[in-house]
Amino acid sequence: EVKNKNNISLFSLLKTKSGTYDPKQLIHSIKVAIALVFVSLFYLVDPLYDQVGENAMWAIMTVVVVFEFFAGATLSKGLNRGIGTVLGGLLGCLASTLVHEIGGICRAVATGTSVFIFGAAASYFRLVPSIKKKYDYGFMIFILTFNLVAVSGLRGEQVIVLARERLATIVMGFVISILTSLLIFPMWASDELHRATVNKFDNIASSIEGGFNLSYIDDLFYRSRTRPCLSLNHFTVGCLEEYLYKIDDKKESVTMINWDGYKSVLQSKSKDETLANFARWEPWHGKFGFYHPWEKYLNIGDLLRELAISISSLKDCLQSSQQPLKPIRLNFKEPCEAVAPFLACTLKELGESIMDMRRSRPGALIVANLQSIRLDFSEAVSDLGTIVDGDGLANASFVF
Amino acid sequence: EVKNKNNISLFSLLKTKSGTYDPKQLIHSIKVAIALVFVSLFYLVDPLYDQVGENAMWAIMTVVVVFEFFAGATLSKGLNRGIGTVLGGLLGCLASTLVHEIGGICRAVATGTSVFIFGAAASYFRLVPSIKKKYDYGFMIFILTFNLVAVSGLRGEQVIVLARERLATIVMGFVISILTSLLIFPMWASDELHRATVNKFDNIASSIEGGFNLSYIDDLFYRSRTRPCLSLNHFTVGCLEEYLYKIDDKKESVTMINWDGYKSVLQSKSKDETLANFARWEPWHGKFGFYHPWEKYLNIGDLLRELAISISSLKDCLQSSQQPLKPIRLNFKEPCEAVAPFLACTLKELGESIMDMRRSRPGALIVANLQSIRLDFSEAVSDLGTIVDGDGLANASFVF
Repeated sequence: EVKNKNNISLFSLLKTKSGTYDPKQLIHSIKVAIALVFVSLFYLVDPLYDQVGENAMWAIMTVVVVFEFFAGATLSKGLNRGIGTVLGGLLGCLASTLVHEIGGICRAVATGTSVFIFGAAASYFRLVPSIKKKYDYGFMIFILTFNLVAVSGLRGEQVIVLARERLATIVMGFVISILTSLLIFPMWASDELHRATVNKFDNIASSIEGGFNLSYIDDLFYRSRTRPCLSLNHFTVGCLEEYLYKIDDKKESVTMINWDGYKSVLQSKSKDETLANFARWEPWHGKFGFYHPWEKYLNIGDLLRELAISISSLKDCLQSSQQPLKPIRLNFKEPCEAVAPFLACTLKELGESIMDMRRSRPGALIVANLQSIRLDFSEAVSDLGTIVDGDGLANASFVF
Repeated sequence: EVKNKNNISLFSLLKTKSGTYDPKQLIHSIKVAIALVFVSLFYLVDPLYDQVGENAMWAIMTVVVVFEFFAGATLSKGLNRGIGTVLGGLLGCLASTLVHEIGGICRAVATGTSVFIFGAAASYFRLVPSIKKKYDYGFMIFILTFNLVAVSGLRGEQVIVLARERLATIVMGFVISILTSLLIFPMWASDELHRATVNKFDNIASSIEGGFNLSYIDDLFYRSRTRPCLSLNHFTVGCLEEYLYKIDDKKESVTMINWDGYKSVLQSKSKDETLANFARWEPWHGKFGFYHPWEKYLNIGDLLRELAISISSLKDCLQSSQQPLKPIRLNFKEPCEAVAPFLACTLKELGESIMDMRRSRPGALIVANLQSIRLDFSEAVSDLGTIVDGDGLANASFVF
């Protein structure tokens, strides 16, 4: 009953945000709940509780903290936690054994000093960018475990037994998390990165299509003289789009102007890096083997972001109030109209070939076509003898 | 001894990365160590240990987990942890009290069900983007506390006493973290965001200066005929820079070509958002009052990123192998040379006025000048009757 209520409000929350509802999120939360119930069995079932006792707490904590959306993230966090606990525990035991030799008040001082030194050193390491990116959580757990073990040792408790039991329950929590994460509808960061890269190609392709259609429509307006001096600045584009929805009976492709696809590409860098980071931890699955070249996805992403930048300034040029005179426009109209669908089609083909992980077959053909189009552009440019809009060229030369 | 060794290796690690060494990172790690020693006193000092006992563990855990680099981040995480613990504890107590009415095996089943429902619901909420951004950690702690309290209750322990004691030690850990974070050399995310915004202005200003100087140098080359057909493509820019370092006796400003300042601006969005998120939590300090308009910093950042995109494509145009003929270049040389230092100077003035939090005094003057420069450009453009390089104009029209 409670759950229903929660879910309904969540559905509406998510739907208002993105318009659609992602079943993966529901699956993830059910997976978390299953892992939690499993790990709670240490408390709920008497024979298990007799084995681990209060230390079952650490298993629950591990599941809550380690279980992330992507399998790679769960693995990475779990291994970080495991290694951090082992190292922190070992060093903590060492410190507390050494301190045990000393008596009286000095013992507390020595423990405090060791806590200070290891705490400062590990915190310093955590700030180093390359370490922070991958091992931040491990260092945090190292500090925590070292501190707990070192000071517990002072209390004369059986540190080694304590550390071993806790480590055992942490490992159990980790195993439960990993099994739930990998066996029930696994969410792979590698799949997500793969799909996101293909989507970038599609987004840019539709931006190019949309963009050149817009300039085409502008020409239509010029010719039909309904608005003789229409200049496409930021204010008129809105009404232009409204207008398009009214005249959309004939040309279907024109009505679907997806200008803004490139914007999502522009800000995708940090998300890509996070996904690649997780993907490296993921075991062999589906079409992705070990040592899949994830850094190439990052390189492709960088190049596509550069292309998105070109498109962004192309858009600024097209929407600028400074438009060229009609004869010059017409001079460029033909090569532009030729290049836009071709570039879009090429990008889509590249995206599809990445999606299917096959070599893009008509590669030589594409390059030859692009070169001929580039030549057309160069001719058009040299006819005018001006700089003119290097973006089309930049786009073309990028794809080579 | 150990620390010295660690620090030496860290120094070298950091120095090879960035060339300089940031004392703030050392201060932060010492602050963490101080907080850790303070919180360890619960174990180290007998009277304190008699008060809290094993629960001192939770205080240590809180310090390790909550202490972040920026004061705002520490506050945000601490409050999230506090609220998550209270809510999770209350609901957990309620659940375990309700379950207590039931006897036998049903009790375990009812507890498991409640763990499942609340775990799934809270995990689902954690994925909602707006919640994830600010309250992710709070929801995680809610799940953890609810789960621990609910299952401990089943074991017939005195749940309410246990929850109260743990909450008390968590509050102590939080207080120690906050005091250390705020009283010893506080690192404010607000200062960092403020400085980062000003730096963006400076970076873009020096990119503009560097960019137009580069084209100026190109002209120099044209005139001196040392390399008659020099085209600034990606390969020759490197050797051009080398050349500049050789001829740098006369023009100091030319030698310091900081073309790439705009690149750091391009990818600053997520960092800005994180900082603004933390800055909102920070109390009144220095020149920042409550309700400081942090979202305006984000808006300014967005606009500067758009400007950086323009500069990026301007760079592509200048470095393209398709360069205009010399007479056209000369035609544009004058307005370009006029606009570059002026734009750079305007951006620096804007940056400084934000830095000092004063109204940019000669605002009307700047706008008037920009408009006259824009007019010059338009004339140069209409002389040629071409599209030509809308970026200078885009830059100019942006600043209005």
